[in-house]
Parts: sequence; C-alpha cells; structure tokens
Amino acid sequence: MSSSEGQPAQDAPGEASPGVTAPAGFRAAGVAAGLKTSGGRDVALVVNDGPAQVGAAVFTSNRVVGAPVLWSRQVVTDGVVSAVVLNSGGANVFAGPEGFADSHLTAERVASALGVSAGDVVVCSTGLIGERLPRELLLGGVDAAASALAADGGPDAALAIMTTDSVPKTADVRVVTPDGEFAVGGMAKGAGMLAPALATMLCVLTTDAVVDAAQADAALRAATALTFDRVDSDGCMSTSDTVTLLASGASGVAPDPETFAAAVRDVCATLARALVADAEGASHDVAVTVTGAHTEDAALAVARAVTRSNLVKAAIFGNDPNWGRVLAQVGTVPESVAPFDPAALDVTINGTQVCRAGAAYEDRSRVDMAGAREVSIVVDLHAGEAEATVWTNDLTHAYVHENSAYSS
Amino acid sequence: MSSSEGQPAQDAPGEASPGVTAPAGFRAAGVAAGLKTSGGRDVALVVNDGPAQVGAAVFTSNRVVGAPVLWSRQVVTDGVVSAVVLNSGGANVFAGPEGFADSHLTAERVASALGVSAGDVVVCSTGLIGERLPRELLLGGVDAAASALAADGGPDAALAIMTTDSVPKTADVRVVTPDGEFAVGGMAKGAGMLAPALATMLCVLTTDAVVDAAQADAALRAATALTFDRVDSDGCMSTSDTVTLLASGASGVAPDPETFAAAVRDVCATLARALVADAEGASHDVAVTVTGAHTEDAALAVARAVTRSNLVKAAIFGNDPNWGRVLAQVGTVPESVAPFDPAALDVTINGTQVCRAGAAYEDRSRVDMAGAREVSIVVDLHAGEAEATVWTNDLTHAYVHENSAYSS
Repeated sequence: MSSSEGQPAQDAPGEASPGVTAPAGFRAAGVAAGLKTSGGRDVALVVNDGPAQVGAAVFTSNRVVGAPVLWSRQVVTDGVVSAVVLNSGGANVFAGPEGFADSHLTAERVASALGVSAGDVVVCSTGLIGERLPRELLLGGVDAAASALAADGGPDAALAIMTTDSVPKTADVRVVTPDGEFAVGGMAKGAGMLAPALATMLCVLTTDAVVDAAQADAALRAATALTFDRVDSDGCMSTSDTVTLLASGASGVAPDPETFAAAVRDVCATLARALVADAEGASHDVAVTVTGAHTEDAALAVARAVTRSNLVKAAIFGNDPNWGRVLAQVGTVPESVAPFDPAALDVTINGTQVCRAGAAYEDRSRVDMAGAREVSIVVDLHAGEAEATVWTNDLTHAYVHENSAYSS
Repeated sequence: MSSSEGQPAQDAPGEASPGVTAPAGFRAAGVAAGLKTSGGRDVALVVNDGPAQVGAAVFTSNRVVGAPVLWSRQVVTDGVVSAVVLNSGGANVFAGPEGFADSHLTAERVASALGVSAGDVVVCSTGLIGERLPRELLLGGVDAAASALAADGGPDAALAIMTTDSVPKTADVRVVTPDGEFAVGGMAKGAGMLAPALATMLCVLTTDAVVDAAQADAALRAATALTFDRVDSDGCMSTSDTVTLLASGASGVAPDPETFAAAVRDVCATLARALVADAEGASHDVAVTVTGAHTEDAALAVARAVTRSNLVKAAIFGNDPNWGRVLAQVGTVPESVAPFDPAALDVTINGTQVCRAGAAYEDRSRVDMAGAREVSIVVDLHAGEAEATVWTNDLTHAYVHENSAYSS
C-alpha cells in the first residue's frame, strides 16, 4: 500500500498488495479447475458487491480477437459490470462458434451463482490459442470460484491468471481527499505478446470511489494510454488484451476527476512496470526516451521504432551501447510523423552521451550496461519540446527458448 | 550460367557464377587493404569499360544514411556511372564531415586511377557504424584494386564485400534474343539488417545490353520492388542499402524493355534468395504468402506483418506450426489497408491446412517443419484475387548470439 499522495508502489509490486480486493466492496477468488496442466490455480473471479456496479474496459485493437473479447465488448457498452471471470490454461481464440458458446456459458454460470445478469459479466481467457477449452472443467471452476469468494481473495485471483508469468502482479493505492479516502487496486498478467495498443495482457482494476461510467471510462483510457500502451516487450499484439475497471462506490467518496484519474494511472503504471520486469526471458528492462520532439506523438513514434528493433534489443542483451543501431531505427520514422535533422541527433545511454550531432562523442566504453537490469536510452531529436518514454526488454536466448518451446 | 529462357540460377548462387564480370565490358577486383581485422579482402572495384556508361541505383529509404549514400545519390542523378567502389570493414555512417570526405576522396582516387570523373563513381561501405574508416588504408586499397582489375575479377569482388556473410553471393543470366545474346550479372552482400524498402544490402548489377538510363532505372526499380524489397530477415532497415546497375552496351544487343527487365529481375531474385539463405543465425527460410487479398499491396502488408513477428519466427525455430500466432499478426493490419473477415481466414503450413475459416482444421501434428530448411506459410484472406510473398527467417539462438556479440 503506497503513500497518501497517490504515489504508486513502483518498487514493490507483487504479493504484498491485496490487489483487486484492496478497495472496499469487492470479493475475489482463484481456484484450480484443471485447465492448466500444472494443476495450479486457473480460474479467477472478481465480484463487485456495490453499492454501485460501474464498469469500463479497453480491449486489444487486434482485428482478430478471441471469443471472450467478442463477448465482453458487448458487456461493457452499458457501463454496468457486476463481475469479471478469468481463466488461464486456454485463450479461447480461433475456437469457432462453440468457443463463443464457452464464453457465453461461463458468463451465465457466474450470473447464476451470483444472482446477477450474464450481460454484466466480463469474461477473459489466456493461454493457448486455437484449442477449445474443456467446458465442464471451466464451468466447474466457476462454481468453485464463486464458493471461494472472499474479501481477501485478491492474491489468489492474481495467481490464477498467470501463464508464463513468474510472479503474480498486484498493486494498489489509497488516496486521501478532503472528503475521505478511496482506493484503487489491480492485478495483471502478461509476460509475452506485449505490445502497444495495448500491451498484451489481462488486467482487472477495482475502486471503491464513487464514479460514473463516463468518468471510469475516461480515467481508464487515459491511464492505459500512458502506461500499458507504452510497454512493448516483443512487438506482438495479442488477440485477448482486456483491462477492466470496476467501481463499487463503497467508500462513499467521490473524488474529483483528476485525482481519480491519477490514482488509476498510478496503479496501471505499477502493473505495467511489473509486466516489463517479468517479461519472458528478459535480462534488461529498457526505457527508451525520446526528447526534443515537435509533438508527444512524434516522440512516441520514434521511441516505438527503437523498441521494435531486434538488433537494438540483441545489442542490449550483449551489454553493447550500440547507438548506431538506435539511430538506424530512428531514421525509419517518416519525416511526416517526426521531423528532425539526422545530423542533429544525440544519443545518451545510461547517462553517457555516446553520440552528439550524429557522430561519436563520449567513449562508449564508459557505458556500464552489465551492472543493472535497467537500461536508459535517451534520443534527443532537437526538433521541439515534447518527449515520451516507451519500455521494452532485451532480446535474449531465453526469449527465443521460451517462445520456440511454448506453443501459445 | 542459367538457361537461355532467362530463368534465374535460383538453386545455384555462389562461387560458380562470375557475377559482375559475366557480361562483356566489365572488369572487377577485390583486394585486402587492412580494413577488416580478419585480414581478408575488403575493397572491391567494378569498372564499366563501355562503350556505354549507363547507371542507375536505388538506396535505403532510411532518413539516417551513411556518407557513401549521400555521395552516391548525387552520382547517379545524371544516369552515368563509370565504376562502383565498395569496402567492407566499416560502414562510414555517423562519422561526421570527415566521414563524408572519406567517401569523396575514395571516389577521387578511383577517378584518378581510371581516368574517369569522380562524379561518376558510386561509393558503398559496409561494416561497423559510428567509426571513421582508416583513410590511408582505404585509399591504398583503391590503388591496389585498380591495379588488380581483371575481366574475371567478379568472384574476388564478391568476396571483398562480405561482412557476416558466410558465402559470397553472385549470379548471372544470359538471354538469347532474335538480335543476339546479352547478359546480366550481379553480386550482393547482406546477412543482417535485412528489411524492406529495400532489403539491407549492397548489390552491384552489370549488363552488356544496350539500354538507356531511363530503361536501366525502370528495370532496376521494378526488380528490387519484387525481390530485395520482399525480403525481411529481421525487420531492421539499414543506413547503407545500395543497389547499382551498370550497363556497358558491349553486347551490341538492345533487348525489348520487358525482356531486359525480366533478366534483371531474375538476377535480383537469385541474389535475394541467397541473402535469405545466408541470414545471420537462421535455421529456416520462410516464405509467407498471402492470397485472396483485394490488392497486391494488401497482400504485401499482411505478409510483412507476419514476417515481423518474433513470436511467429521463434515458433518456426521450434518447428511449431503455430498458426494462432500467424493470425494474431494478420489481425494487426488495419481494415483500411486489407479488408477481410477474421472468421474466414485459412492458414496452410507446409501444405497442411491447419486453420480453416478461423478455427483449427487439419491436425497440426501433420506439419513437418524439422525436415527442411524452407517453410511455407500461406494465409488466404478470402477477400479478393491478389497475392504476394515475403521471405523471412526464423528467430534463433544463433541470431541473438551473433547480434549481441557483433557490434555494428
């Protein structure tokens, strides 16, 4: 739990936070239903006990989406969400009409167990693509999860949504306002297929603040645009990304929109950073910051181009401050998107200005990349005042190994 | 040397072909000037002895380019090229004003040795980025290469432009027309930073056909668009790509434009295929073909999206026919670029239709990927009649190793 200023618990994600059950008005559970071959927890349920049942969600922008996304897009259109049910062990993507029926029946089973409408139940699935989920096991898991719901069930739920994640990812923040306190909590999973628009993942956020659907939606979209959408681990956009925000109103506190949005953003930032820190096979977390751009979108486009380069990412794995590869990527961004003079570009890696005005400057051997997991690359375009940061990881043998061996 | 129908020597690139000295009217050389730490050949010279000195070239579309590209763009504007000088052992990119002087002086030295104008000498450099070339060694190499020029010097020149290439890449074709024979020859280097627009590489093409500058330019652009521009080994666009075509007219044969363009395309296709076959660390060559698109551009956009996926490429390294990852990439292409119905998509891998209408179809275990270097992925969009193929490679441990250890 972080400080009252709304600062996120940036350095302490993980089991310490109750996650989605940090705010009042929520129960959660995570049970083992036999979907994962490991026998681990694989069905999670997060329930909003109100008094309000406000919900908002953002989804992958991929045109090819799983049945749960098709279902859940409809659920959130009215701004009412009573519960989110999530399973690992199977993504329910490319599973045909029966796959859609699986998602529908899952929502119906939750609705029946909780006495709510199926049309208010968001469904998320993650795991293998292209195979049917075992329907009876899944529905049995829903029953078990409903029976296990608890006001301290957040950590169990976070465990149940893990796939190749090595640690569960939870976060929360408590904000003091003149009218009282409110909280925002959350959990996320995601360790591969992390890419913008948005970073591939499942995430459930909860809050006991009193907000309406429009305010929840606005805060969620603003937060994901600045956090999950600026994580690009491997450039691969998933078919299943879903971030859902549930608001119970149980605190009785109606924060002003800016305060609320900041709290949601803080929790998202903590969770996004935790995704990068746990990305499949990575040995470095890399912050690519582009400064001196004429607009923030231009800075973002240049930063994204750098984070997409396998050559840059492999060099970082080799602890090689290879600024030439960085600038080669910068040069791929069209002038219409980001005007700059190639002869004016500066590059600073971990504080050493290795390139100034498009030529070698400080000795690259002064850059120590082996000493820390985090690497900072700053590119100054000298074309304006705007800047943006995108996070990525290095390209490692372990990434290749995991993704050549894990059929997903 | 391939058949008289203009068929490329697709299956026999390599040392067997004389490459750039296959057509009449050309001499070439490749010498060791001390630029490569290995002590191997590192300066190549290709000279057009006429009678015509027609030239055309295409360059990287990267906005950040090396000094040789800045120089050579000017050289080719008048359609006259007398010689191409190339060095490995240093790319002369981000080397400041002195780096540009290095390229200029290289052209001057060639001009002086051959009695031609420096403004008709194309300069190409490849190797490390961000460091100065040792000027005296380079100019000494130019003198040595000029002295070593020979009518059978093509293979030596092909050796001198190699960086991480494991084999030299040469090709040629001889075409019989009613008016007599003409030939097209070529050499290329490139094993990393291979990406579209155009595939990163240096390439010199020669012909003894009688063509004017406009015809040479048109044939070259058409050929590269269909060959080098459809190779995407690692998605990384270089700062130095240059493909130059020199026409001597020495055969006295003026082929019709279609016949000439086909011959140039055939040589480019052979060389492009050789680049894929020698890509850094690859264990599979992958042809991604998109059919049923409403336009060829749409097919190309979808194919490029698939070839850019690290998850797809890692799966291929693992001999995993992971069509879900393929379709997840297909879905990232905007509808405005490639209209299709996600529920209609088919995927066939090595002849087995693993996905039909967006769901699993033939048993994926029937796909044998381990048995051959070449993998074929066909995606049918069912949205039209157009198609396109893009070549890529798998993502392997060896790729990560080479690119984390090789500072370039």
